[in-house]
Amino acid sequence: MHQTANLEESYRTIEESAIKDWETFLRFESISSEKEKESDMLKTADWLSDYLNKIGFTTSILKTEGHPAVFAENKEAGPSKPTVLIYGHYDVQPTDPLELWKNPPFQPTIVGKTMYARGAQDNKGQIFYCIQAMRALKLSGPLPVNIKFLIEGEEETGSPSLPKLLDEKKDLFKSDYFIVADCGIPDMEHPAIALSLRGILSMDVHFRGSKGDLHSGMHGGLAFNPNHALIQALSALRGKDGKILVPGFYDDVVPPSASITKEIFSGLAEQEYLATVGCLPTGGERGLSMLERGSLRPTLEVNGIHGGYAGSGFKTVIPAEAVAKVSCRLVPNQDPHKIASSVRNFLLSNCPEGIEIHVDIHKGVGEPVRADSNSPIVQAVKKGYEEVFKKPCRYIMEGASIPIVAKMKSTISKEFVLMGLGMPSDAIHAPNEHFGLDRFKMGALIIAKTLSHLGNSSHN
Amino acid sequence: MHQTANLEESYRTIEESAIKDWETFLRFESISSEKEKESDMLKTADWLSDYLNKIGFTTSILKTEGHPAVFAENKEAGPSKPTVLIYGHYDVQPTDPLELWKNPPFQPTIVGKTMYARGAQDNKGQIFYCIQAMRALKLSGPLPVNIKFLIEGEEETGSPSLPKLLDEKKDLFKSDYFIVADCGIPDMEHPAIALSLRGILSMDVHFRGSKGDLHSGMHGGLAFNPNHALIQALSALRGKDGKILVPGFYDDVVPPSASITKEIFSGLAEQEYLATVGCLPTGGERGLSMLERGSLRPTLEVNGIHGGYAGSGFKTVIPAEAVAKVSCRLVPNQDPHKIASSVRNFLLSNCPEGIEIHVDIHKGVGEPVRADSNSPIVQAVKKGYEEVFKKPCRYIMEGASIPIVAKMKSTISKEFVLMGLGMPSDAIHAPNEHFGLDRFKMGALIIAKTLSHLGNSSHN
Repeated sequence: MHQTANLEESYRTIEESAIKDWETFLRFESISSEKEKESDMLKTADWLSDYLNKIGFTTSILKTEGHPAVFAENKEAGPSKPTVLIYGHYDVQPTDPLELWKNPPFQPTIVGKTMYARGAQDNKGQIFYCIQAMRALKLSGPLPVNIKFLIEGEEETGSPSLPKLLDEKKDLFKSDYFIVADCGIPDMEHPAIALSLRGILSMDVHFRGSKGDLHSGMHGGLAFNPNHALIQALSALRGKDGKILVPGFYDDVVPPSASITKEIFSGLAEQEYLATVGCLPTGGERGLSMLERGSLRPTLEVNGIHGGYAGSGFKTVIPAEAVAKVSCRLVPNQDPHKIASSVRNFLLSNCPEGIEIHVDIHKGVGEPVRADSNSPIVQAVKKGYEEVFKKPCRYIMEGASIPIVAKMKSTISKEFVLMGLGMPSDAIHAPNEHFGLDRFKMGALIIAKTLSHLGNSSHN
Repeated sequence: MHQTANLEESYRTIEESAIKDWETFLRFESISSEKEKESDMLKTADWLSDYLNKIGFTTSILKTEGHPAVFAENKEAGPSKPTVLIYGHYDVQPTDPLELWKNPPFQPTIVGKTMYARGAQDNKGQIFYCIQAMRALKLSGPLPVNIKFLIEGEEETGSPSLPKLLDEKKDLFKSDYFIVADCGIPDMEHPAIALSLRGILSMDVHFRGSKGDLHSGMHGGLAFNPNHALIQALSALRGKDGKILVPGFYDDVVPPSASITKEIFSGLAEQEYLATVGCLPTGGERGLSMLERGSLRPTLEVNGIHGGYAGSGFKTVIPAEAVAKVSCRLVPNQDPHKIASSVRNFLLSNCPEGIEIHVDIHKGVGEPVRADSNSPIVQAVKKGYEEVFKKPCRYIMEGASIPIVAKMKSTISKEFVLMGLGMPSDAIHAPNEHFGLDRFKMGALIIAKTLSHLGNSSHN
């Protein structure tokens, strides 16, 4: 039986080398979206694979049409123990605007107790503390459960190759549970585990009128203005009470159980939201709580509108075309394809005569996912958080989407957990990304304790 | 008494030199919007002033804060005859894209019976045939009426200095009638005089939400999306029947008399509109004729909308701001300032909570104008057209606006006419601008005949 009490001590033993190795990992310029970084990507995958191999994993580099994924496996816990797959990514976002970085993004720099570098948190920092958890665990004997790592190289470009890889290597990845180690907590006072992600669908909507732009004096009152068509059709989608008026939009919505709802961290209060974001949280359906609106209910957002003149001064134009970009966030058990069709059909039926409408639904919709809070993996992670934070751990319902999770759920395991120690202030995707050394350590301990608990409970 | 029958012969006498002088006029690179053409502008004004002086006018160059205006006067008809001011402009539009011109824009080139050059029509061609009409008339004796020319140099930049000049030199410009020689006819089969211009007002409307752009997953349902606010507020402006719902919007609308309405050229039929413009004329108020919608009724057009992501692909953003550009075309007796306030107030009252709205009404509103069809100047021009075209001349109600005309009406004379032989196919403001030599001649004859009739009728 693994002694979780010893883990703190074990971590202290490896801490110095863990930070040094993390810095090495951060020095690789693994920007997946930049063509000229292709060899950096390969070097990163090679280094990571070697590293995992050295700490006792069988590793392979899985080729894809894009950047490869690193796979690693340790079966020493034996067939009586469950298998846990830990998912993360070694690729990072681009670094511009470079001039806003206080230190070069690929020259990791510790200031006080904070590591500054591109990827310090997202996701090199988070996946690397998971790896360090293995080193800490191994100091007390074999790993408590069987472990697989799937660390991809295309997360920052939308994981284009991963669905195919998941299908092709289904048997390799198959596990009892999986952990997505790319998430966060609201703040250090509120440890919490994300139980759900909203699904997503998006579309471009084109409203086309005349052959070319028209003079609004000569044609005003004659040509139907595509901007008017856009306004008319899109205004039909939403009531003034914020309800989405697309027929059937809410039909399949299943709220989480009342018992779970009580344990959900409710997020910022209204005045805190105003202070942080700069506006009152008046969006969404009137009469519902911020928690409901921000994560438990589906949304329809117009992410872009563009038609006619947008420069300074004025141009009296009736544009030939106006375009809207529309997305929906979905909750269990809404079907993205069904909702996309309903939105499309409703838009078509609200397009005025004289205007052609084209609705292009984007590929790559994401299904909503919700983890079962009774799953051993969720309970084990919760216990891990509580032991490390010494505070009760609650649940979060994420408003955002990670489309690949639904695919992982259907190929790796139905039971999963979304965990991590990211915080909104970490400046991921921005200059001066950083991650606290304290959280790096806490992350390693949470993962180590979680896996110990999971290994132990499978004995009973 | 002037013999209008001799005018054709008189014109033939001067035609060769008229075309040569017109080419000289066209060679000046009088682009008012380009700083580096300032000396070209002065040279053009000097040349024009000298030219008018040589053909018997007292001339002066009137300085403004911008480019000067050329003023010329001939009082030889004597105090028993009326005074007519002819307005035009010597400045032209820029020439880019230069590579699309078949001949250099300031190297006038006659191909067949067509003059190609920047300004060939707008307005050097049209104002110059008015000047040639003076030469033709003078071959038969003194001018039939007293003539003033006011030829400005800032029309293509919105006549910024003209209102002040009109106020300051009110007495110099004061006339019995004025002719705006910068307009057109629908086509060669349909001679027509514009009796009215719509007024115009315009505004920018800003909808502001959060401090910065937000992630639509994390904030969808919480932050009120400024795009939604724009759609909601602007959709309140227009009913599905095309009626503008701003309270009082139509209150002051006065339709033209039934007798005039019968004489209005109704423009393109529905199928012709579709073929020419590329869309059915389904805009404006449902149930009204194209004539009414295109010129007799006011409009409210959304000329620009812009908010959030407009590029290819998708970005799940809730923008911090969305902007609309809105304009109205007004008809007698709507007051632009009153309507602008009504639209502003209505938008303010339709802005949802959580969004700040800012409405910036642009300076330079234009009042609608309508000429009195019974005015001697309108009747004389009508007769001129009919004699030259040998067809009945009808009226046009312009949907577009020339804001300066209202100011001219209040300073020069209440009686005026909008005339010209421009056609939609002349490519004004575009590469390969051109004007027919036939229309140049017809224009000179129409002006000469008009002034003769006016001089003669004032005897009776």
